[in-house]
Amino acid sequence: MLPARVRQLCELLGRLPGVGEKTAQRYALHLATGDAAAAQALGEALCALASTVGRCERCGNIAEADAQGLVCAVCRDSRRDGALLCVVARIQDLLSIERSGAYRGYYFVLGRLLSPLEGVTAGDLPLEALRARVRDPDRSVREVLVATPPSVDGEATALLLAQDLRPLGVIITRLASGVPHGGDLEFADPVTMGRAIAGRRGLE
Amino acid sequence: MLPARVRQLCELLGRLPGVGEKTAQRYALHLATGDAAAAQALGEALCALASTVGRCERCGNIAEADAQGLVCAVCRDSRRDGALLCVVARIQDLLSIERSGAYRGYYFVLGRLLSPLEGVTAGDLPLEALRARVRDPDRSVREVLVATPPSVDGEATALLLAQDLRPLGVIITRLASGVPHGGDLEFADPVTMGRAIAGRRGLE
Repeated sequence: MLPARVRQLCELLGRLPGVGEKTAQRYALHLATGDAAAAQALGEALCALASTVGRCERCGNIAEADAQGLVCAVCRDSRRDGALLCVVARIQDLLSIERSGAYRGYYFVLGRLLSPLEGVTAGDLPLEALRARVRDPDRSVREVLVATPPSVDGEATALLLAQDLRPLGVIITRLASGVPHGGDLEFADPVTMGRAIAGRRGLE
Repeated sequence: MLPARVRQLCELLGRLPGVGEKTAQRYALHLATGDAAAAQALGEALCALASTVGRCERCGNIAEADAQGLVCAVCRDSRRDGALLCVVARIQDLLSIERSGAYRGYYFVLGRLLSPLEGVTAGDLPLEALRARVRDPDRSVREVLVATPPSVDGEATALLLAQDLRPLGVIITRLASGVPHGGDLEFADPVTMGRAIAGRRGLE
């Protein structure tokens, strides 16, 4: 029923994360029948992407290429504390930590988590690159903050990283887990409440 | 925190219907760090869109341009019943009716509904074009099926169209409203149940 070009567009949009057939069709019809200049601008931005943007060669964060190579804004920031390295699963997690303003070290983006259900094993994680980063004599990392998410896969990955990095003589820490700020205690799930109690702190 | 090109991509993706800041960022990161060829293909498809695809000049459905102009697949199909014209609000509604296989006439896509809340009045609807389409001596429309949605705006638009088209001497019909196929009566909302009862039919 739809023209071939619109069907092709639906198929390409359907590869975006969390986008099914209906949503892809909705986007495609919007782009094909709405503001033509907006569709054109989006098309041009996407065509320019591959040649200008990619993963930072130091940490895996997203970066814009220039004369210095593909190095992200965090890795370029020499005022950060080189003794601190934070390991995150995804770039989104890095952005969330940056928004908090509470961290001033560097990052390492794993790109994925251990996941027995999805067949992701230790061999699929960039452990060798992480060890090289921690051992890098130019930076002298002293603490690795493992900021994988507080899920089953995230915890399993954190344990693996701790085992893997301990021989390198660095302090390994984990994000605190507990009731979120502004959360209602009544609706906290039992695991979160259990962690909040186990991790209770003295009132200063 | 994100490179300028990725921020621009987020901004453009955020204009898609129902896409907020977080979702736009998720799409942008997927496109910028995932399969570069897929992002390129999507970019090229979008750049080619404006010059090849648009609204059918007869009915407003989506159409691919060729030597015959911008005419959609439905309007090109001469085996359809020219006496039947179905008025829909959106192209998605046309596609849904086509999927049912129960309709063999032509269409007219309004593009919008009357909506006092959003400030859409009768003057914003293509009523003149619709009257011209109904009066077209080459097609001799006998029945106009008003397939606007069974919502407040859809009903108001249907009443307006009925008033507007009645002087042209055509039969004006409306989609039946009632409990959906496979639906559970227990969970039918009162308005739907009321319509199903008011519109009850004799068992043949």
